[in-house]
Amino acid sequence: MPEAGIKGYVEANRDRFIAELREVVQQPSISSQNVGMEECARLVRGMLEKRGFQTRLLSAGGHPAVYAERPGTSATTVLCYGHYDVQPPEPLEEWIAPPFAAEIREGTIYGRGVSDHKGSFMARIHGVDALLALDGELPVTIKFLIEGEEEGGSPTLPEIVRQNADLLKSDYALYAGGSKDENDRPVVRCGQKGLLYVELTCTGAERDLHSRHASVVPSPVWRLIHALGTLRDAQGQVTIPGFYDDVIPPSPEDMEALRNVPFAEAKMKANFGIAEFVGGVRGLEALKQFLFNPTCNVAGITAGYSGKGAKTVLPCRASAKMDLRLVPEQMPQDIAGKLRRHLDAGGYGDITMQILGSLEPTRTPLNAPISRAVIEASRRVYDQEPVVVPIWAGSGPRYVFKRYLGLSMVADPGVGHCDGRHHAPNESVRIADYLQGVEVAAEVFRLLGAATPA
Amino acid sequence: MPEAGIKGYVEANRDRFIAELREVVQQPSISSQNVGMEECARLVRGMLEKRGFQTRLLSAGGHPAVYAERPGTSATTVLCYGHYDVQPPEPLEEWIAPPFAAEIREGTIYGRGVSDHKGSFMARIHGVDALLALDGELPVTIKFLIEGEEEGGSPTLPEIVRQNADLLKSDYALYAGGSKDENDRPVVRCGQKGLLYVELTCTGAERDLHSRHASVVPSPVWRLIHALGTLRDAQGQVTIPGFYDDVIPPSPEDMEALRNVPFAEAKMKANFGIAEFVGGVRGLEALKQFLFNPTCNVAGITAGYSGKGAKTVLPCRASAKMDLRLVPEQMPQDIAGKLRRHLDAGGYGDITMQILGSLEPTRTPLNAPISRAVIEASRRVYDQEPVVVPIWAGSGPRYVFKRYLGLSMVADPGVGHCDGRHHAPNESVRIADYLQGVEVAAEVFRLLGAATPA
Repeated sequence: MPEAGIKGYVEANRDRFIAELREVVQQPSISSQNVGMEECARLVRGMLEKRGFQTRLLSAGGHPAVYAERPGTSATTVLCYGHYDVQPPEPLEEWIAPPFAAEIREGTIYGRGVSDHKGSFMARIHGVDALLALDGELPVTIKFLIEGEEEGGSPTLPEIVRQNADLLKSDYALYAGGSKDENDRPVVRCGQKGLLYVELTCTGAERDLHSRHASVVPSPVWRLIHALGTLRDAQGQVTIPGFYDDVIPPSPEDMEALRNVPFAEAKMKANFGIAEFVGGVRGLEALKQFLFNPTCNVAGITAGYSGKGAKTVLPCRASAKMDLRLVPEQMPQDIAGKLRRHLDAGGYGDITMQILGSLEPTRTPLNAPISRAVIEASRRVYDQEPVVVPIWAGSGPRYVFKRYLGLSMVADPGVGHCDGRHHAPNESVRIADYLQGVEVAAEVFRLLGAATPA
Repeated sequence: MPEAGIKGYVEANRDRFIAELREVVQQPSISSQNVGMEECARLVRGMLEKRGFQTRLLSAGGHPAVYAERPGTSATTVLCYGHYDVQPPEPLEEWIAPPFAAEIREGTIYGRGVSDHKGSFMARIHGVDALLALDGELPVTIKFLIEGEEEGGSPTLPEIVRQNADLLKSDYALYAGGSKDENDRPVVRCGQKGLLYVELTCTGAERDLHSRHASVVPSPVWRLIHALGTLRDAQGQVTIPGFYDDVIPPSPEDMEALRNVPFAEAKMKANFGIAEFVGGVRGLEALKQFLFNPTCNVAGITAGYSGKGAKTVLPCRASAKMDLRLVPEQMPQDIAGKLRRHLDAGGYGDITMQILGSLEPTRTPLNAPISRAVIEASRRVYDQEPVVVPIWAGSGPRYVFKRYLGLSMVADPGVGHCDGRHHAPNESVRIADYLQGVEVAAEVFRLLGAATPA
């Protein structure tokens, strides 16, 4: 039984795996502060070379990505995306152990980046170890692309992938691994929403004025409020003309998958302290809306005085930061154009629109070979049916691989748990989850080696 | 000629006046920081006692007001309102001379509070000097009420006036003096707008959430934007039902007065950097709108993230600070009720409304004896027709005297100039303006002594 073989090997090598994972976590690699980036890239590269991978650093002007490749016995190639950079650890005083000590407490490793996302690529590297030890060779050619700028929005990743499209060419691609859910069920995510992030700014007088002038001097705050009021109605429907044109509604298979996604509705409402969801939806309808509906959210709005008490000022500037989560096949550039034209048509041509972020939505069909392999590997390792999420409500750079390589990605359950605290103090990975993540990686590679490339 | 007499006396006593004014300015009296308040009240009280006034301190729990009274020969009593407290002087580094040095440079006294508003009551005290020296007695009974909390919104003034209504009872009342305009024409202000200041707050989830939840978790930002959108239209009309019910439009006499108010429209637009006034009004129509229209202004709005770049957050709270300038006979409590009922009727009962400020509008008819006396005194002193502003666009505590004493106030041209920099570094009074302010005060008292009480 190959599964027993992998499991046995992982158990036997547990201490070495954990030591190596801790070593990577102990190397700070804070991309936004340029702390330890070179050292971490070198460390990761060295670990891959030790396994017989040929490695290179790929750069398009930012922190380099570590690229590694090792041939396998089949004609199949699998690309594994990950990132070695981490968020800043602050606030330090809230950590129960130093963020770069990777201390173990009661079977859990605490450290910045252990779950987001060093644990994920390390589990795949250790999955490689298992296959090499058990089989003497890899069942597929494995390519790693481990970038160093994900926490900053992957600014140069599209260029890196575009420039190295031939090098990165693969049959299948795995996104950075995910996590278990609230009930410790493994989760497979087959897509993610896109994102358009814009800042709308409206200006009035050239400086803030005493508010006695408000009867004659135009207010940019009112202007922005009126403009925003035309973008979304009180029921949550986005009213930008054409916004929903390219939305692909969930298929019957998607809805079937949704029925198997546990949705702790009452718990979620209690946790968030809300009485109703947007539009009053419940149950499956709420879950469908959560995952399949695009959004138009005001992430921030600011104008004038926001301190204590009263100040009578006519603000000279008002701005709103908006993030629009997009679903296939809504394209951020297209939506940005529709928003701009809608503002112009409404007489708001003077309101400036700066695009601060743009990610395309992606979906991999549930019956695609990569989806089937990850789902089957999860069944084997976790001994239960994984939660299959057709499209995740968050966003990320998966689209880059679709656009330049034609690859639809899936995120395996990875090594995380539901309280992994990404971007927050006391980020953690449970050792048992990590070892299962190693097993899943090995199983996925094996299953893909046996599959016929699409 | 009595005018020559007053003028001559003022010229002869110029150095003494300036020395005494500087002494009062050199005594800091920062009400918000409780710096020098007791000392300044004592100093002002002493100056009034030296002139034969009977004095008391009146308090309703805050910084005391200096009250002083000296009988005159006629049956007429005039109440002079002023304040001895000043704004904090910060930022200190921007002053060309220490803020409490009251240094004289090229005929101008620089110091915190010299124009706002110590110069005003000192000019009236020196006006008393002139009358006593020239006539041996006062033509009217003069009462001073010089409060110590104006810079903090006069929180206890209503209670002080209410409790001492018998003591303060008068025939006429003068508000703290004003200033000359951009063309150095003296300005008489016969009223001021009221104010309702509220903070509207809307809450959603119990904490900020990742914006991926925006498709199901209600956004308080959108809710506030939609609610605000129902308060005012794009043309500047307030759409709260009943908002304009009690507005008294300008009379033919008001419009006649407006025609004599210089309105540097192009200069004002250039100074503020705006192309058009609200609603596209011009000329007399713009001036009328400026002075006679109530407003509904958003002084501040805040929610979510307003830092650099993009943050994808679904805010849990949104709030707006609103200041509504009211015109006679709009009453702040009534407008607050209408706003609350409008929000409730629109389904926004969950949006909280906190009242942070409330001032009633006041107007004194242009042909009232107090108006006529101040206008005539200005003609005599300045040798030109004063600018008579029927109602000023700003707000203040005049209404307190109307409500508890039945007194309609007028602000004489005072001692200020158009660049007096109230609340800012390098606040100043020009000595020539100060001396004219002394003359005006003396003339007003004389004219009121000759008038028949209304």
